[in-house]
Amino acid sequence: MDLSQLGEFGLIEEIKSRFATPEEVTGIGDDCAILPQHLGRESLVSTDMLIEGTHFLMEDITPYQLGWKSAAVNISDIAAMGGRPVATFLALALPSFLNSDWVEEFLRGYGEISDKYNCPLLGGDTTSSPDRISICVTIIGETPKDKARKRDKAEEGDLICVTGTLGDSAAGLKIILDNMERDELAQKLIKKHYLPQPRVIEGMDLASSHGIHAMMDISDGIGSDLRHILKASCKGAVIDTTRIPVSAEIKTICQRNGWDVLDFAVNGGEDYELMFTVTPDAEKNLNVKHWVIGQISKETDGIIWMGSEKQFNGYNHFSN
Amino acid sequence: MDLSQLGEFGLIEEIKSRFATPEEVTGIGDDCAILPQHLGRESLVSTDMLIEGTHFLMEDITPYQLGWKSAAVNISDIAAMGGRPVATFLALALPSFLNSDWVEEFLRGYGEISDKYNCPLLGGDTTSSPDRISICVTIIGETPKDKARKRDKAEEGDLICVTGTLGDSAAGLKIILDNMERDELAQKLIKKHYLPQPRVIEGMDLASSHGIHAMMDISDGIGSDLRHILKASCKGAVIDTTRIPVSAEIKTICQRNGWDVLDFAVNGGEDYELMFTVTPDAEKNLNVKHWVIGQISKETDGIIWMGSEKQFNGYNHFSN
Repeated sequence: MDLSQLGEFGLIEEIKSRFATPEEVTGIGDDCAILPQHLGRESLVSTDMLIEGTHFLMEDITPYQLGWKSAAVNISDIAAMGGRPVATFLALALPSFLNSDWVEEFLRGYGEISDKYNCPLLGGDTTSSPDRISICVTIIGETPKDKARKRDKAEEGDLICVTGTLGDSAAGLKIILDNMERDELAQKLIKKHYLPQPRVIEGMDLASSHGIHAMMDISDGIGSDLRHILKASCKGAVIDTTRIPVSAEIKTICQRNGWDVLDFAVNGGEDYELMFTVTPDAEKNLNVKHWVIGQISKETDGIIWMGSEKQFNGYNHFSN
Repeated sequence: MDLSQLGEFGLIEEIKSRFATPEEVTGIGDDCAILPQHLGRESLVSTDMLIEGTHFLMEDITPYQLGWKSAAVNISDIAAMGGRPVATFLALALPSFLNSDWVEEFLRGYGEISDKYNCPLLGGDTTSSPDRISICVTIIGETPKDKARKRDKAEEGDLICVTGTLGDSAAGLKIILDNMERDELAQKLIKKHYLPQPRVIEGMDLASSHGIHAMMDISDGIGSDLRHILKASCKGAVIDTTRIPVSAEIKTICQRNGWDVLDFAVNGGEDYELMFTVTPDAEKNLNVKHWVIGQISKETDGIIWMGSEKQFNGYNHFSN
């Protein structure tokens, strides 16, 4: 069945039947969703758009993966502030020739990650598109008042830490785009690209820890994302590139193909690990697994990449 | 200058410089926006997507109008619940060949309606699209607890009312699509289509009035939108088509072209007037300008369109 048979309201019914609405909340089916408010808390809001042809190609990603990833990148934005995800809103523009099985698989992926992070879908928009798929997810999260961790709070002397290995997602993407052989090793990297696991628990734990200053998620690669923290905080940084954590899988793949692992680990985006800055004293007592990769310095220092001759730049959506 | 020169971060800077962030709020520039919460209030959330080729054609709409309308349709969703708009989040996917003047004009239109309704832009996403423009706006609003007016509360005997004339927007759209002569009269209708004025004040007033049961905004036409209220409330309705308010402009245009004014007034969407149901007693004391067009009846009645031989159906995004 294609979408022109299912119809807009059929699609909304399909979505409604798959996503339960928590008590005290009005979800799908009215002009707006209604969320109760709690004093002493703050709402976090973020929105992300995924466009066919820019962010994904239909032949490369399954609808399940795309559904998962659409929600994941938004949940990660809440994790990046140390917040608890509350609800998402999904706007879907779909060509009417699209098969309704595709939509079901998309919703299954979206639903599984929503359940995993206890973050219900509460509304959205469904509309047709002449050709390409456009997906826009908005997420609401919450934190106790003044507990959200922002980008502009890094202080000189802070250690710069990350919560996991970097570069796997970008290496997975290269394997996909270059149409390389997908052995077990390659599959692991591809999975990191398609099914990222946002660091929600870690983010909440860090936000309630002492001495954490700036925090964000790594979506464009540390080469680009660290600059956001430094710019917002008016600071510089020294990164010890030998301390950037990388997986055994990416090391092997890079050796095998003569690739530079640092290119992926520094410039590669979409790992959705957290990067944060913390005082050296507080770092010793953190409960969250992390790797120290550098230190915040004076603004005039810029970024110094120790242990590498390369300079690393960020990603620009309009010029790549 | 095209967008590949301006770049993603140039565009974000451009947006940031145009939209002021209120105190107590963290807006554009971090992973999420942060909104303080107030006890005894509820958050309203809605999202709407506009796709080039489905919702608008570049040759027909100016970027100023598109910016205005993108925000307007979302503000109207908050009005539909009787809420106060708090903030919007704008996701923009733009082809990189697009001129930056276009973007400036878009932001000017978006900014003017945001200012008019005191609803700041607090975040979003900017990305590139291979060809078509996709726009997704998410809006947050608020109401006092239990004051949001929903679709499922219509009661038998309620009067059905609308806050203004219907059909102008659809007639304006027909003039545009048929490439008809744009005299002063036509211009007025076209303006109603491109620059809708959401009924925020009226919605808030109605939400705090006694005896108002169901409420929504008219985005798809009363033929379709009334069905949402009836379905959600398990009711039927009698509409007196002779009482549906229409403007002098649409009457003249319809006479001139041999069109049926009811086709526009009933099936035509995007007027963004409010439709609400109210007890006959309470209706007498309303301060908000309105027209009574019918009455809620038993579910088994369906919709009876008095004064017209036609039956009216709704709009389906995937089959039109």
